[in-house]
Amino acid sequence: MEEKNNKQIILKEYIDRAPLATDLELIVENKINLNVAKGSSSILVKNLYLSCDPYMRARMRENYNSYLPPFVPGKPIEGLGISKVIASDVPDFQPGDIVTGFTGWEEYSLIENTKNLRKIQQDDDIPLSYHIGLLGMPGFTAYAGFYEVCSPKKGDRVFVSAASGAVGQIVGQLAKLHGCFVVGSAGTKEKVDLLTRKLGFDDAFNYKEEKDLDATLKRYFPEGIDIYFENVGGAMLDAVLLNMRIHGRIAVCGMVSQHSYHDTEGTHNLFVMISKRIRMQGFLQSDYLHLYPEFSQVVCEYYKQGKIVYIEDMTDGLENAPSALAGLFTGKNVGKQVVCVSSEA
Amino acid sequence: MEEKNNKQIILKEYIDRAPLATDLELIVENKINLNVAKGSSSILVKNLYLSCDPYMRARMRENYNSYLPPFVPGKPIEGLGISKVIASDVPDFQPGDIVTGFTGWEEYSLIENTKNLRKIQQDDDIPLSYHIGLLGMPGFTAYAGFYEVCSPKKGDRVFVSAASGAVGQIVGQLAKLHGCFVVGSAGTKEKVDLLTRKLGFDDAFNYKEEKDLDATLKRYFPEGIDIYFENVGGAMLDAVLLNMRIHGRIAVCGMVSQHSYHDTEGTHNLFVMISKRIRMQGFLQSDYLHLYPEFSQVVCEYYKQGKIVYIEDMTDGLENAPSALAGLFTGKNVGKQVVCVSSEA
Repeated sequence: MEEKNNKQIILKEYIDRAPLATDLELIVENKINLNVAKGSSSILVKNLYLSCDPYMRARMRENYNSYLPPFVPGKPIEGLGISKVIASDVPDFQPGDIVTGFTGWEEYSLIENTKNLRKIQQDDDIPLSYHIGLLGMPGFTAYAGFYEVCSPKKGDRVFVSAASGAVGQIVGQLAKLHGCFVVGSAGTKEKVDLLTRKLGFDDAFNYKEEKDLDATLKRYFPEGIDIYFENVGGAMLDAVLLNMRIHGRIAVCGMVSQHSYHDTEGTHNLFVMISKRIRMQGFLQSDYLHLYPEFSQVVCEYYKQGKIVYIEDMTDGLENAPSALAGLFTGKNVGKQVVCVSSEA
Repeated sequence: MEEKNNKQIILKEYIDRAPLATDLELIVENKINLNVAKGSSSILVKNLYLSCDPYMRARMRENYNSYLPPFVPGKPIEGLGISKVIASDVPDFQPGDIVTGFTGWEEYSLIENTKNLRKIQQDDDIPLSYHIGLLGMPGFTAYAGFYEVCSPKKGDRVFVSAASGAVGQIVGQLAKLHGCFVVGSAGTKEKVDLLTRKLGFDDAFNYKEEKDLDATLKRYFPEGIDIYFENVGGAMLDAVLLNMRIHGRIAVCGMVSQHSYHDTEGTHNLFVMISKRIRMQGFLQSDYLHLYPEFSQVVCEYYKQGKIVYIEDMTDGLENAPSALAGLFTGKNVGKQVVCVSSEA
């Protein structure tokens, strides 16, 4: 029975505010058996890349009665990742296979429910970590949200907040490929430059430098906004509502500025939804999984043709994962935040 | 040239709060020529019934850049009404015809744009005033909003606020006819009794007697709300958001509790739209006018078959119109608020 040391990242206790790195703890001394028992229908994986996603904040809350259960304090947290199979009692997965799906924030994980794991066909042209970014949940969120929720038309004026983030950067590029006019907001000059110079947005601004977001949006959208891809909530949503065009659509993907279910600031301009006939639609990518094969094919092709690029923020080492996750909520990450646990695939 | 005295209700000045009766003024001495000039393409009408509707508040604001222009201070306000043609320079309308459409809040009106006027075929079984209620804009708002915006299914759990109002009472009855479970809220015991005893709602409550609307809704909807027909905004919307079911729909018809575009209180629970995939859709009946003939036929039949009833609050006399309009915003009206200017059709 081969035993290995298995570093883990555990949740200390539930929170109801923005996560801090100190809400998580690195457990250094911890053993794991690298074999799987016959009849267990489990696999044992070595984790390579872990995805840091804003939705994980919700699982750090105690009273989170939603589509995923809360994390358990004292246990390693989990998230989407890319892992290598070490041992398997499941015929579909063989040692050496690379898989993506939910895994623990630790070096090695025993995965008992392999139903939602997907095998990755490695492709020299596509970085492995992109399978939790461009080609994973964030990319598919952008794809499903833009095409299925935003009802885009050529020429539509599209605004994306948190536009250089894991999802926003893809929404903007898909919108450009669809023939839309696209402006993004972000929180640093570096991100704003990326949006216009690397990601092909028509324009971009640093919301932190704008005193009056209503006036800012009027400057970038003198004729108003047809589609708002909502990633932040709060004051930006209020300003957007005032600048929406008649029959505008708001896809509510995330509200990263809202650190609690109860937004103390509040949204004050919902009234305009009536006269402007605005549709505001919350969504989860998991409702659109039937489109995943189409997405995967389309976006792979776009990427290989150089029509889409993807910006990752890669943090090395499991010990740095807590600050990488917390950084999402202060905007520290530039692009999709990934933690590399081991590059030895 | 026949001249008549023509009492009018004028707007004194723009407001940005709930309308008061004193924001309007009765002008007693005012003459009107009861003939229309040849070539003017106008008609001269005697006004019979005037409709008091919450949307009129928005036209009392100066900076109201929406689907209808603001009223002009010092001039009579206008609204939907039922009128008798006295003189006409339009072939489609003859003296004696009864018409409905926008008219002035005055005894007689010269209507220069007759494009949106509709002739009413009188029917002994249907009170004339119902053409600005059950069979007019409020009824059609309920019909279009319920069938086109709420995506109702048999068995859906439907919540209607301002449920005894001009629109709400029809939404609830249509929902019952559709096989839904329907609960309404209103602001007096009398209205709550009407909802359950006369309008066929499954249940109803007086929101003014509830200290914790979230708990109240959990009591009436232990399994959550599929459809919320939003007429009030504010704290009720926040409580509803917490009680919506996954894939729930919110049709935003009005927000009568919000007396300004800027809701100082704010909505705080929009975050749940994501995990619950809630669709919130503002709408105006005018986008669905192609359905008007179908609506008219269906609702007339329902009414004649006794499947739908309609509650009106009839105020007699133009001089009482200002307080009738203001009463909408304090919940004084019981049912659809109408002003009878003259019953002599």
